[in-house]
Amino acid sequence: MKKLLKVKIPAKAISSYPIFIDSGLMKNIRLWLPKHSENMVIITDTQVQKLFAKKLQETLKKYTKKITLLAFKSGESSKNYKTIQTLTEKILQRRFGRDTVLLAVGGGVVGDLAGFIAATYMRGIPYIQMPTTLLSMVDSSIGGKTGINTPQGKNLIGAFWQPSVVVTDIDCLKTLPKIHLINGLIEALKMFLTNDKKSFYYAEKNIDDILSLQKNILINTISRALRIKASIVTLDEKEKNARMILNFGHTIGHAIENITQYKMLHGYAVALGIMVEAKISEILGILSNENYEIIYRIFTKFNISGKKLKTLNIDKLILATKSDKKNRTGKVRYVLLKNIGDIYKKDKQYVHSVSDRIVKKAILTVRNSFPTRS
Amino acid sequence: MKKLLKVKIPAKAISSYPIFIDSGLMKNIRLWLPKHSENMVIITDTQVQKLFAKKLQETLKKYTKKITLLAFKSGESSKNYKTIQTLTEKILQRRFGRDTVLLAVGGGVVGDLAGFIAATYMRGIPYIQMPTTLLSMVDSSIGGKTGINTPQGKNLIGAFWQPSVVVTDIDCLKTLPKIHLINGLIEALKMFLTNDKKSFYYAEKNIDDILSLQKNILINTISRALRIKASIVTLDEKEKNARMILNFGHTIGHAIENITQYKMLHGYAVALGIMVEAKISEILGILSNENYEIIYRIFTKFNISGKKLKTLNIDKLILATKSDKKNRTGKVRYVLLKNIGDIYKKDKQYVHSVSDRIVKKAILTVRNSFPTRS
Repeated sequence: MKKLLKVKIPAKAISSYPIFIDSGLMKNIRLWLPKHSENMVIITDTQVQKLFAKKLQETLKKYTKKITLLAFKSGESSKNYKTIQTLTEKILQRRFGRDTVLLAVGGGVVGDLAGFIAATYMRGIPYIQMPTTLLSMVDSSIGGKTGINTPQGKNLIGAFWQPSVVVTDIDCLKTLPKIHLINGLIEALKMFLTNDKKSFYYAEKNIDDILSLQKNILINTISRALRIKASIVTLDEKEKNARMILNFGHTIGHAIENITQYKMLHGYAVALGIMVEAKISEILGILSNENYEIIYRIFTKFNISGKKLKTLNIDKLILATKSDKKNRTGKVRYVLLKNIGDIYKKDKQYVHSVSDRIVKKAILTVRNSFPTRS
Repeated sequence: MKKLLKVKIPAKAISSYPIFIDSGLMKNIRLWLPKHSENMVIITDTQVQKLFAKKLQETLKKYTKKITLLAFKSGESSKNYKTIQTLTEKILQRRFGRDTVLLAVGGGVVGDLAGFIAATYMRGIPYIQMPTTLLSMVDSSIGGKTGINTPQGKNLIGAFWQPSVVVTDIDCLKTLPKIHLINGLIEALKMFLTNDKKSFYYAEKNIDDILSLQKNILINTISRALRIKASIVTLDEKEKNARMILNFGHTIGHAIENITQYKMLHGYAVALGIMVEAKISEILGILSNENYEIIYRIFTKFNISGKKLKTLNIDKLILATKSDKKNRTGKVRYVLLKNIGDIYKKDKQYVHSVSDRIVKKAILTVRNSFPTRS
């Protein structure tokens, strides 16, 4: 006698969330604060607490019944189980229930941690992303990826959990050091390189105005990057296909971060990753040398050149590409570029196996490059 | 200039998973093993490891490329962040990728922990529930609730994450102590009390055969309970409405567990909870005294009587009902019984606020009850 039952999980309706981009949003709470935000927990780091979050808490007090601010020590090294546990237990101690809204105020580390807490607090509560760095504005604040690091690698543990709203106040960028602006701009450039030629040249032309925070151009650039990311995320919440495009420059980029113990800023590692992966595309006859040079040249404007690869052990670097969670079981697959604004697809695949030999050749070529004439 | 974009999250298709119930399933792997299970991690506890999991691993070796068994110390006290972290890092160290299937072999603690690991490993991988206790067979193995305990309470942290398949091999019950059979049977009785009069009387009539593991009656009873749970879970994955029905007897039950430091078996605490919540229903004029007596009497067959409440501090008990995550912000709400097999609904609500005074009166009445004639 064998019994077999079936449990059906009902389909979820399409859901969506808005992204606000403007200056002054930290002051104009009513523009974006969702209904039913009576109970709020602000999660931030010690640095952003001083800059914005404390003031924001004061402003929010008028609109909430109960609000707490929790800050952890700034930096990637806080992105671990320990911080999740400490913060979660603090929220529980303050007896916040399921009707609580988390507000993540900070860069990518804050967003990833707060998002993971929201995903697992009483099996999931809503949260708001308020990115304060250019990198998190153009990238991690949307898409619902949350997570932490472990000794085995970055972001290997986490959950997909979408924010209720994303609030991008460009005023936060006024206090951001220039290298962090560049850090974010590189992610935006990656999106343009893989999806949108026009935006790539728009950003290239306006680099100085972006870095000096010229309001309209800045909002335009962020919006262009977000529109690309939003469309990819919409197509593919779970990263099975289209979302892999976002990984351009990141297979090598993550490996560089990994073997340098994450001491290099993410964007800078990705810039080097883009150079190498564009060079792989060129070696494989997919990308023209002319386009490779255009790509290489834009990074030299930030003082990033292939020479930075010289301090790295190539074999260790290639080994590290194999510990990425996308490449655990076997060959390493890369997003390849066909043209500026266009990736290479074959048999409906967005990623392609590349032999270690070709990767090694690309790294060697890039690290021996001289800055080209601009 | 204000920009507002919108991110759309696409609807998910209806998904479903099968539940197998039979004897011999641990041996007949091919009956239930999903495709693409080449890489597997068995998660179990030290006790179940010896009883079944080690042998199961041997059997599975023929069907997998790579299989690891990880066992944590048996018992509710392992259900915490520490165990999650330790097990997760062990899986990462063994370089298991996204194409890994977790197999939870054990009772509720194993299922909850393994499910939470599956929910957060590389942002979510599939898992199989193989419950080995009657309680987990009729209850926690389906529904997708996963989670851990914290010093602030039970199951306050977790995720909804559905298994790919549930494998219920009743042979596991042969080694289960009688009090653990009773422990599970009480949960089944709770489901019958709230949903299915016929099954309640079926179980009442066959209690001895169930406890002596008469195969057909046992499979029938488990199936009847699962059918109820599956229908409720299908209606309501996120527990907003119908799923609350499952909470009958649990508001008081959880509070008892809480103030006795979880030393009482869950089912036994729920039995006392059912008595008190049925008595509340009677005091409020919703349930007849005759039906209350029928309910009370079935538990006396397991040597559970209201007298067990005498050792508990009533005020502490009532306070503890308020720390349940469903009751964090204000009044405590109860599932009330109208009839055997039928709960009380009012204004489409499944739960109803009850004053402390009535709760106290119900506890006092139940604890002074004498075993009734059967």
